[in-house]
Amino acid sequence: MMKISHVGIAVRDLAAAEAIFKKLLEDDRVHHEEVADQKVRIASFELGDSRIELTQPTESDSPISKFLEKRGEGIHHLAFEVEDVAAELARLKAKGFELIDETPRPGSHHTRIAFLHPRSTNGVLIELCQKEDH
Amino acid sequence: MMKISHVGIAVRDLAAAEAIFKKLLEDDRVHHEEVADQKVRIASFELGDSRIELTQPTESDSPISKFLEKRGEGIHHLAFEVEDVAAELARLKAKGFELIDETPRPGSHHTRIAFLHPRSTNGVLIELCQKEDH
Repeated sequence: MMKISHVGIAVRDLAAAEAIFKKLLEDDRVHHEEVADQKVRIASFELGDSRIELTQPTESDSPISKFLEKRGEGIHHLAFEVEDVAAELARLKAKGFELIDETPRPGSHHTRIAFLHPRSTNGVLIELCQKEDH
Repeated sequence: MMKISHVGIAVRDLAAAEAIFKKLLEDDRVHHEEVADQKVRIASFELGDSRIELTQPTESDSPISKFLEKRGEGIHHLAFEVEDVAAELARLKAKGFELIDETPRPGSHHTRIAFLHPRSTNGVLIELCQKEDH
């Protein structure tokens, strides 16, 4: 684990949330992206060497939709940048961590990602991200 | 807002959570501290230019106790480092953000901190941290 890649925040209305975080962070530089595989649209802000990623579902069966129904808006996941996501998955599985994704999937910002199950990490949904050019 | 200072994670058993995060992060260098004002004990890991802060309540009326009762273990707050916490509180109040703390309080790692109410920040409990030597 090299650093916090980003903190993912589940929101119902991306445009409204983006306006709030622009004011909060005093930063108008927002990156927009749709991650079809996760059925979400994101608006992200760079902050130090990490990002804040606002995430709105695009489909009712998006993982973010389920979270919003159960918990409402709020912090959804914590993402760590890693050199090699497949190697980290193998290491963590061997250590007894439960994986949601056994193999990496496409993420935002040209990354390959995988999630760990919050059951084995004190209720924290953890995402591993590897930059695609690595 | 300069960077993510830390991500605070509410846990029931600090020693057990610490063992899990040592394995997860492959890092045995843990900082321990009690923050009497917040009625918590923490175990924190440096990661990039941020920290992961595991937080266990020391009293049943700690804010973390209430969170654990309602939500269970998981991510509790997102903390941003700022140059001047009092100035940021004034700026955010003027912009319509709801403050939990009108004036800064003592935090971990020699900081002065204040919380914003999650009602005005999409369900995210946000902490502002200023290093005391600033």
